[in-house]
Amino acid sequence: MVYGSGWSDNMEEFCCHFCGKSWAQDLFRTFCRDCGEPLLCKETVGQKEIHWEQSNPLRRYIDFLPLREIFPALDLGTGDTPLLTCPSLAEQLHLPRLYAKNESQNPTGSFKDRGTLVAVQKAHQSGISRIGTVSTGNMAASTAAFGARAGLRTFVLVKEDTGKEKLLSSAAYGPRIMRVRGDYGKLFRHSYEIGINKNIYFINSVDPMRLEGYKVTAFEIYAQMSCAAPDFVFVPVSAGGHIIGLMRAFLNLREMGHIASSPTFIGIQAEGCSPIVQAYEKGLDRVERLSGADTIAQAISNPDPPGGNIVLDMIRSGGGSLLSVSDREILSAQGQLAGQEGLFVLPASATTLAGLIKYHRNNPIGPDKSCVLILTGSGLKGLSNFSGSLGALPCYELSEIEAGIE
Amino acid sequence: MVYGSGWSDNMEEFCCHFCGKSWAQDLFRTFCRDCGEPLLCKETVGQKEIHWEQSNPLRRYIDFLPLREIFPALDLGTGDTPLLTCPSLAEQLHLPRLYAKNESQNPTGSFKDRGTLVAVQKAHQSGISRIGTVSTGNMAASTAAFGARAGLRTFVLVKEDTGKEKLLSSAAYGPRIMRVRGDYGKLFRHSYEIGINKNIYFINSVDPMRLEGYKVTAFEIYAQMSCAAPDFVFVPVSAGGHIIGLMRAFLNLREMGHIASSPTFIGIQAEGCSPIVQAYEKGLDRVERLSGADTIAQAISNPDPPGGNIVLDMIRSGGGSLLSVSDREILSAQGQLAGQEGLFVLPASATTLAGLIKYHRNNPIGPDKSCVLILTGSGLKGLSNFSGSLGALPCYELSEIEAGIE
Repeated sequence: MVYGSGWSDNMEEFCCHFCGKSWAQDLFRTFCRDCGEPLLCKETVGQKEIHWEQSNPLRRYIDFLPLREIFPALDLGTGDTPLLTCPSLAEQLHLPRLYAKNESQNPTGSFKDRGTLVAVQKAHQSGISRIGTVSTGNMAASTAAFGARAGLRTFVLVKEDTGKEKLLSSAAYGPRIMRVRGDYGKLFRHSYEIGINKNIYFINSVDPMRLEGYKVTAFEIYAQMSCAAPDFVFVPVSAGGHIIGLMRAFLNLREMGHIASSPTFIGIQAEGCSPIVQAYEKGLDRVERLSGADTIAQAISNPDPPGGNIVLDMIRSGGGSLLSVSDREILSAQGQLAGQEGLFVLPASATTLAGLIKYHRNNPIGPDKSCVLILTGSGLKGLSNFSGSLGALPCYELSEIEAGIE
Repeated sequence: MVYGSGWSDNMEEFCCHFCGKSWAQDLFRTFCRDCGEPLLCKETVGQKEIHWEQSNPLRRYIDFLPLREIFPALDLGTGDTPLLTCPSLAEQLHLPRLYAKNESQNPTGSFKDRGTLVAVQKAHQSGISRIGTVSTGNMAASTAAFGARAGLRTFVLVKEDTGKEKLLSSAAYGPRIMRVRGDYGKLFRHSYEIGINKNIYFINSVDPMRLEGYKVTAFEIYAQMSCAAPDFVFVPVSAGGHIIGLMRAFLNLREMGHIASSPTFIGIQAEGCSPIVQAYEKGLDRVERLSGADTIAQAISNPDPPGGNIVLDMIRSGGGSLLSVSDREILSAQGQLAGQEGLFVLPASATTLAGLIKYHRNNPIGPDKSCVLILTGSGLKGLSNFSGSLGALPCYELSEIEAGIE
């Protein structure tokens, strides 16, 4: 990482979760100079209020966000996603207070829009004209959409072998897509050097502004539960950014006295790619990089998660837990969410239900406890991988339909 | 159509747009016995109020809907979709008051959820346990999702040659999918006989309850424009149900004195399948069925639109217009919406912008006029048809990226 050279403007206050040091840096340099960990936005001091009268979610929670001003024209209608009851699963699992926060109803169909929105607001305020991301899926589409909306030149760096279908949902918005040979983790780290040298703000998975955007989801859950925190939150874990943002939001609410205690967070990975869970179970305090990944839950398949160490620490100090689920359990949960609740989500999102079922089996959750599943992305984004194989559908003449119905 | 026999319960009040007759019938018989046209829900008498304090859209507008009670558990978070500004297109077209109502943010990614929700609420209230639809695309997925949510057995009848990709987004929810040989128009009409004989409520394109659901979109636009009607509404037209519902809503608002006049509605079809536009331009008062269809806008490709005659009459008496646009214009508009506004929609939805551009060229719209594009479905539903061909994306080594950026 190159520090002290290149483009630098609009300093922000960051801090390191581990060494506790504060750094005033620009958006292009968001890793701790001492320990190399991703930096988080520094919490501002003073009382923070929720501005209930605001219809725009960012304005409603602006006291908790690193933004001085909100430009609604940059938004596509992000947030205020439904917190749905799950009547059928609630009965089946004896968890009457089971809810799903459906983040797939965000503009580009995933939770990534939450983070992209805040990062693009910040880019706009900072006079940045070029943004980028290292991603192949949901984050690429989200960044490309908001970049197009804001009139920013947008660069999407992807692995050489990324499939055409995955790229189409980003390509629609007209970003510059560049395929890159070699290791994905190296590309992630190298992107920051490129950003500094080429004046491109790389809004990657653990970008501190992105993480702040994820906080809004948690604030909405608090509001939707009549100003209370749920007892449990189940969330898929990949690079770690999403769960860090959600946990930070509940810590914010607790610090401000809005809630007495934070929810118990259960972070879930797929067995085929579970580096953070493995470190958790081995009692390590640093995540060991995996050499590969093999799971149907592609959206959370990151063998070298940059936020992993922070997740480990926050989960341990917050009383939560991390666990992994198999592809079989994921596919089963995906089918249950669609067939019983009408919620068709990506396999990555279905890990939440699979994780709840597994956790509940080993640590029975009382019927008085409230549980929230964070559904991160729409099933429409992974149609080609969808488990529900159609098989051979019989074909009928008009006159045969009635007989075929019974 | 078989009348007077079979299952019958829970009579509803319907009326015929053409002969003006009222009919008390059940949900399984929704065509005029005299003229064969689709029936509409009979307007109730008395003052109708908007219940602004209600957060649930159906409850907010219940006075205008054929429902006595709303069961929120049957819903998936339908409605309250954003009405977005289009800053870049507004500047380009000299229409500063240009907006997009993004119906693709509904639970299954299309406007169909609006109608399905009201029909399923009615089915639930009427003790109906089986629903169905004749569709291959958005309506099938929507009906399957809400059917699954409500615990209703759901039948999806599709054409023999429907592609697997199109079926997957419905299959996810576990409905009974039946492929049927032969003519699609015949299947549509025959489905009502099947429904009567097999106790299946077919919620097809012009189902009167479905149409009432579409009214809520218009009420939201009225609310989002600070209790005013837009000057122009641009909406894709297929079977006709959507535009009929939207026009009815503004008539409701006018009758109740909420607005002085209805918007000018511009209904748009694709040139490759424009039976209603052709009848409109020929001065006919009945739509002539086409033998085939050939357009990229598959979601509005209906050569035998059951609501066509009503659309013709309502457009003529309301001062609106109907026009068709070419596939080239549609694809160009699709690219503009994504690339300039960050809105990736189906080709069918892009007809609204293509239609606005064409209409505006021939009948310049003043800069003081407000225009709303109804974006009906998410581009994620038609990825394989997406125009933005990726072409050959160059592949870079890590060390080559910076040079490649300029």
